[in-house]
Amino acid sequence: MALIVQKYGGTSVGNVDRIKNVAQRVAKFKMLGHQVVVVLSAMSGETNKLIELAKSIQKIPDPREMDVLVSTGEQVTISLLSMALKDLGLKAKSYTGSQVRILTDDSFTKARIVSIDEARIRADLDSGHVVVVAGFQGVDEQGNITTLGRGGSDTTGVALAAALKADECQIYTDVDGVYTTDPRIVPEARRLKSITFEEMLEMASLGSKVLQIRSVEFAGKYKVKLRVLSSFEEGGDGTLITFEDDEIMEQAIISGIAFNRDEAKITVTGVPDKPGIAYQILGPVADANIDVDMIIQNVGADGTTDFTFTVHRNEFTKALDILKSAQSQIGAREVSGDDKIAKVSVVGVGMRSHVGIARSMFKALAEDGINIQMISTSEIKISVVIDEKYLELAVRVLHKAFNLDQEPA
Amino acid sequence: MALIVQKYGGTSVGNVDRIKNVAQRVAKFKMLGHQVVVVLSAMSGETNKLIELAKSIQKIPDPREMDVLVSTGEQVTISLLSMALKDLGLKAKSYTGSQVRILTDDSFTKARIVSIDEARIRADLDSGHVVVVAGFQGVDEQGNITTLGRGGSDTTGVALAAALKADECQIYTDVDGVYTTDPRIVPEARRLKSITFEEMLEMASLGSKVLQIRSVEFAGKYKVKLRVLSSFEEGGDGTLITFEDDEIMEQAIISGIAFNRDEAKITVTGVPDKPGIAYQILGPVADANIDVDMIIQNVGADGTTDFTFTVHRNEFTKALDILKSAQSQIGAREVSGDDKIAKVSVVGVGMRSHVGIARSMFKALAEDGINIQMISTSEIKISVVIDEKYLELAVRVLHKAFNLDQEPA
Repeated sequence: MALIVQKYGGTSVGNVDRIKNVAQRVAKFKMLGHQVVVVLSAMSGETNKLIELAKSIQKIPDPREMDVLVSTGEQVTISLLSMALKDLGLKAKSYTGSQVRILTDDSFTKARIVSIDEARIRADLDSGHVVVVAGFQGVDEQGNITTLGRGGSDTTGVALAAALKADECQIYTDVDGVYTTDPRIVPEARRLKSITFEEMLEMASLGSKVLQIRSVEFAGKYKVKLRVLSSFEEGGDGTLITFEDDEIMEQAIISGIAFNRDEAKITVTGVPDKPGIAYQILGPVADANIDVDMIIQNVGADGTTDFTFTVHRNEFTKALDILKSAQSQIGAREVSGDDKIAKVSVVGVGMRSHVGIARSMFKALAEDGINIQMISTSEIKISVVIDEKYLELAVRVLHKAFNLDQEPA
Repeated sequence: MALIVQKYGGTSVGNVDRIKNVAQRVAKFKMLGHQVVVVLSAMSGETNKLIELAKSIQKIPDPREMDVLVSTGEQVTISLLSMALKDLGLKAKSYTGSQVRILTDDSFTKARIVSIDEARIRADLDSGHVVVVAGFQGVDEQGNITTLGRGGSDTTGVALAAALKADECQIYTDVDGVYTTDPRIVPEARRLKSITFEEMLEMASLGSKVLQIRSVEFAGKYKVKLRVLSSFEEGGDGTLITFEDDEIMEQAIISGIAFNRDEAKITVTGVPDKPGIAYQILGPVADANIDVDMIIQNVGADGTTDFTFTVHRNEFTKALDILKSAQSQIGAREVSGDDKIAKVSVVGVGMRSHVGIARSMFKALAEDGINIQMISTSEIKISVVIDEKYLELAVRVLHKAFNLDQEPA
């Protein structure tokens, strides 16, 4: 008998039939003798609908009231799933974040979990109940309703699994696992049996939106066994997220190819090469609350330097305007930008112990005439920025170059 | 400066524009220097939508989960109104029933309020906030969400007014007060400046659905000054619900004509006239959870008696079937029924000190050829059951007979 936390996303509970399907799946695990805690998101589209409603009342909705509003989304699904479970003859009980007491800080709309009181859940499990918990939400010290921000239901699932010392946290989603890359671009893309937390973090932050990043960090910190599964297909094993110190089932050098079309780059050229210049350039950008991703600086020959960084494409114009206003103060020759770029990354913990990955990557891209505009590396990934029109080609080329369509030896 | 509790029903907060209108009205009271607590229902139609959703999952939805589900309706409106108030530059804060701590018993879907912790609300009022509270809901000792049953938002308003010792509890609805009868039937019907609690109870239970009965009982018990007002028209004074020991502004003998089309009558004739017969007849009906309204028994000449009672029309067939099965056991000659009836009542505390009201009533009906099938009286009302086709005529005749179109002297 195991204790399993299962988290189902918005599409998995998007209508009455799907909620009944989730109940059937939960019932199967229960019949096998497992204890099951279910964490749910709101029905897909519901949270956005509520946000739109709020904006039609107050242009920038009050954060405290926003959380009161959007937290109703999961309250609806937990009650409906509990009814569906009872309809199958199971004992079931729903809890809002506040009822469990998922204590968070008071940062409305982006709260962080401080602690979880697992006593009530434990008692219900011991008396044979399926416990159905609202994801994404909690309560602060003052009893105000809080939410964890977008995708926070994954975090709730992992945090509950950690608090309950669950045997496994299963994240059900509309994909059946983590792939070597997006199968819509590379049909040969292969589902990974396992992936390390570090790789998953890189894959997630680079745009493989299978899991919310914070939940992966959480799982890593509390050593929660995390598995990504499809809520629509039966019988698959999904992808297990492993720790590097676990026995690793497949030891590939490269696990996958991630990519991101949401970035734009800004280049400041002919800047006097003196201390403090990076701060002078990025200071005003940070003051405007714009997140910067890649940053590259090259020393030039004539005592000046070129500085390039990427931002989210939505903030491209704003960032460009800021730097153009600051241009003369910085003493730059030119400020230019390009929002027709894409970032492609190879990710793999194997890089740590293997040399020549970067060379193989650059060679493969060069052979197909793909020009590299920026390069950035970390311990387990190499990212390049290229013209966005080459994105699909680059992903296919790299997937093939690293033999990702084949199971590792 | 007064402390006012304002309750707005579902149609008053039925869409974004109406919510903004409520915010404007609240702002006016706030600007006059009053402290305001607002109690809200769910948007009109929302609760029914959620109930339908539940029934599509579980035929008879689990009551605990039902309350988790439907309580989201008010949670949506309180957050939206708080945003609208903030948008007008006011300080505002929303509370669910559980957050206030409106403690109830654990009778899910029809809970009763046990106590209200008014400390948080008081503190917010003192710091200049408008406090927006979800009607219809509470929380039990175990922290489970409960609801008060249909129309329970009125009860929340009155209970909060009692707990806060508010100067007035204003119930905003889609009518601008309590009328001498339904203006759709009698165009001359007049809005009452005031009505006593006892009369209101009779009017409400007889089908003038302006206020939920339980809220009127509550107001009477805790001496809460209650006023019914229109949320769509400006400037009216509505109808004040008074206590009999208050100075009464208009002392009419009869306050209004109430009526009810929802009943059906069942007659058991030729029953042996012996002790226990009423129990024998009504026992099986009560066992089937069918509410009985009027009951009349007449002793006959031949040692038998006739027994007639009314039930809600929805339960007519069920009740009739029960009695037909029990007929031989009771020893009745015949069991018959009629669901084409209506009940009309004259209501007025003045009856206590005036004689001849019944005679005037029966005379007026007789003059227009309306046959009376049943009569039932209480201290402040006289009800008759007639053929439903005479209902409108009877209401008009009685309204005129008691001069209800004219202000009392």
